[in-house]
Amino acid sequence: MDAESRILRDLNEPLVDHAEGQLFLNDAFKIIMEEVLCKGTDIKQKVCEWKEPEELSLLLDLELRATGEPRERLLQRVKDVAKYSIKTSHPRFFNQLFAGVDYHALAGRFLTEALNTNLYTYEVAPVFVLMENEVLRGMRQLVGWTEGDGIFCPGGSVSNMYAMNLARYQLLPDVKRQGLFGLPRLNVFTSSEVRNGHHTVSVGLPTCRMFNDDRRMDPVDLDEKIKLAKSQGAVPFLVSCTCGTTVRGAFDPLDLIADVCEKHKLWMHVDAAWGGSVLFSKQHAHLMQGVNRANSVAWNPHKMLATGLQCSALLLQDTMNLLRNCHSANATYLFQQDKFYDVKFDVGDKSVQCSRKVDCLKFWLMWKAVGSNGFADRVDKAFSHAGYLVDQIKKREGFCLLQEPDFVNICFWFIPPSLRGKEGNADYQDRLAKVAPVIKERMMKQGTMMVGYQPLGNKVNFFRLVVFSPVLSQKDMDFVIDEIERLGNDL
Amino acid sequence: MDAESRILRDLNEPLVDHAEGQLFLNDAFKIIMEEVLCKGTDIKQKVCEWKEPEELSLLLDLELRATGEPRERLLQRVKDVAKYSIKTSHPRFFNQLFAGVDYHALAGRFLTEALNTNLYTYEVAPVFVLMENEVLRGMRQLVGWTEGDGIFCPGGSVSNMYAMNLARYQLLPDVKRQGLFGLPRLNVFTSSEVRNGHHTVSVGLPTCRMFNDDRRMDPVDLDEKIKLAKSQGAVPFLVSCTCGTTVRGAFDPLDLIADVCEKHKLWMHVDAAWGGSVLFSKQHAHLMQGVNRANSVAWNPHKMLATGLQCSALLLQDTMNLLRNCHSANATYLFQQDKFYDVKFDVGDKSVQCSRKVDCLKFWLMWKAVGSNGFADRVDKAFSHAGYLVDQIKKREGFCLLQEPDFVNICFWFIPPSLRGKEGNADYQDRLAKVAPVIKERMMKQGTMMVGYQPLGNKVNFFRLVVFSPVLSQKDMDFVIDEIERLGNDL
Repeated sequence: MDAESRILRDLNEPLVDHAEGQLFLNDAFKIIMEEVLCKGTDIKQKVCEWKEPEELSLLLDLELRATGEPRERLLQRVKDVAKYSIKTSHPRFFNQLFAGVDYHALAGRFLTEALNTNLYTYEVAPVFVLMENEVLRGMRQLVGWTEGDGIFCPGGSVSNMYAMNLARYQLLPDVKRQGLFGLPRLNVFTSSEVRNGHHTVSVGLPTCRMFNDDRRMDPVDLDEKIKLAKSQGAVPFLVSCTCGTTVRGAFDPLDLIADVCEKHKLWMHVDAAWGGSVLFSKQHAHLMQGVNRANSVAWNPHKMLATGLQCSALLLQDTMNLLRNCHSANATYLFQQDKFYDVKFDVGDKSVQCSRKVDCLKFWLMWKAVGSNGFADRVDKAFSHAGYLVDQIKKREGFCLLQEPDFVNICFWFIPPSLRGKEGNADYQDRLAKVAPVIKERMMKQGTMMVGYQPLGNKVNFFRLVVFSPVLSQKDMDFVIDEIERLGNDL
Repeated sequence: MDAESRILRDLNEPLVDHAEGQLFLNDAFKIIMEEVLCKGTDIKQKVCEWKEPEELSLLLDLELRATGEPRERLLQRVKDVAKYSIKTSHPRFFNQLFAGVDYHALAGRFLTEALNTNLYTYEVAPVFVLMENEVLRGMRQLVGWTEGDGIFCPGGSVSNMYAMNLARYQLLPDVKRQGLFGLPRLNVFTSSEVRNGHHTVSVGLPTCRMFNDDRRMDPVDLDEKIKLAKSQGAVPFLVSCTCGTTVRGAFDPLDLIADVCEKHKLWMHVDAAWGGSVLFSKQHAHLMQGVNRANSVAWNPHKMLATGLQCSALLLQDTMNLLRNCHSANATYLFQQDKFYDVKFDVGDKSVQCSRKVDCLKFWLMWKAVGSNGFADRVDKAFSHAGYLVDQIKKREGFCLLQEPDFVNICFWFIPPSLRGKEGNADYQDRLAKVAPVIKERMMKQGTMMVGYQPLGNKVNFFRLVVFSPVLSQKDMDFVIDEIERLGNDL
């Protein structure tokens, strides 16, 4: 084809055939329904279909080629991706701080994907600008703030990074114009239980950890460490508390930490990515007593509330436009000031992102479906499950609880018969450390269950089970300990 | 209900009824199909349904309440959200650097949402760890690298921020342990055409802009500015080139800039978020001649290739694990080292995020469906459309091109009859500046079309039309200029 005829062809017809495309989408939807949502939540089916990377690569035929493939082949690919992926909605998936499925949230996510817009101006996202505001307002109300600000970020680490940016900007507003050169030595304080390395990398701040014996931050120790840092010429500017640590689910004592922050005039940030959802529960919200005294709170509904990844909010007590002032680039080509509507509804300048995904709709639709009361029930139910499981673990021979949980993270060792009563042996810890990895390998290869394990400080590998998925019931709890026993009894 | 019976109830039944949930999802899918994908792509339907924020708030009844709502009400909400949202897949949506729909990509997005996993270990995302590698490999190949590294990030700004982190870490590896205090004054260089304010905010670096007359970065000017910065005691460490600027779609001369970067030993980053997709086209890849000499490239397939938000890759030439070394937090509780599979497949330590959404599947499925040749056709078609539109604009009275475009961004003024031939008048520019905003208001209130406008430097408000959506054909191009004329002829 010569250049001219190619151009003529290009101009003639669109490249997308809507009827054909919609038929494909319809068929793909049926496969998703069957493979991911029906089979994927059925306890008679596997939670995972383990393959070694090399084998899986071959099975999936991932290679990208010059020419396209026919429709039936593509539908088979949809099936294969579903088949070899982990069924995170399965009742036997306890591996992460996300699990289960909520169909209202999922409908919201499909709608978000189909509408495909960018949450940065009222012009392109009128519904979502207003909806995000309303969801943030509802979340702030639970924190105890009648006013404030906030934004949805692509995950908790970014929300935490934003808090650091804001705290730094409030202390040293010139940083935005002049950069970081010549700044004093800024210090951040956080609990030794968490690894905030992730977000400190981004902003380049060294972290001063509290080396508390317990799993919670010690306010007395914090006060001393702050004084010490100051005496050495550093400038402390932020304390990052944690509500719901990743492994043990610990909650820092917010009220006592708030006293220390007030005394030293430091920004108090609460990383409640995992624990924040307790705020819905009348029974359990006390774990976050004092959160209303924080400057900022990060909270991920994609974890305990099962909205689906990603759904992470940064909530702010600030009413002075700190977020916008800190992050705005005043790019008139992006955010024109001579619009025919009130440009305060253009939220793009609050974000360091330019394209920002809509993460509020799934949570909003789910909230409309179950109400705040429904969320409270889910949180309470998770605690009931955790309580039940703790009781079973205490009763069962060979199971040893790490400690009484604060939250729904249940940490325990399985002591196989060959190790029972051998606590005094020199190689006991070394041998115990090898138990969880073997059981994990077996459960994955058999596809019966997924539970995480890890070491922590001087504690060798132990299981961490998180029970919060809305698809769980008692029989799933019972299954877990029976299955660990079955898989590890010969060790 | 007393506490004990509440706990019994909690243990008894899961909170999610799968059959009921799947029925809801099925109905929601039908609404999405009808309202978003059929009506939303139909030129006989509006591209937007304009409402003032206050009115829209009332119509949507956004408030979150204590109790949940019945099924029919929730389905109506799905309909309402669709109705008042912008139809970004509509052939008359030219407002942003994303537009149109691809049904294979959309199927991939639905599957991603249903599978709901986190791209950080092989354990929870076996398919996607391998798939992301393959997609990154395919993209790197187009850049001209047979080896390398990379990662998908939540948007171009984050990809750019990662490049800065890496460049800084390579120059000063101690920054990770010691923080930013006491570092030399680091300088970044970029074109005056772009506002990199967004990502420089995050890393706190002052940006040195090139004040070139043209829309492209001037390598001679760059060299001089670098020398000047050095002579003033600063440490230049990164040059950020742009391929496809937001407004004019300009491409910086990469080969010439690479010479300057080599001379000064600076990290060369290419922000090809918008323009990167030309690499698929034999005809147009020359715009990025020299990209293989860069250290890093950011490229967003969610823009020109219509994969859907978010889909942004950072590609690296590095083969020495720089990404992992720079970003790892060595959190053994997240990434156990004693696993039963090769932990090099756990990619979480490459990211500063902990939860990272799967963004590769939609692109992979689409690539399988159309092949690299299909992508090349799409890019070529976009250029054909742009060429056709430029011709029409040149022929039509009252339309004035800002300049010949490099790419598919077409920038032009509409000069209403009352202003034609009045270029010499003192108030000409002021009056011209007011034309685009009025036409924009009218098109949105009538819902016929969406096109962006902005000022740039000393140029008053002009329209920027981007023509790349795969759903476009010639009649959509013709419509645009007829419609602008219709809406603005009385001004």
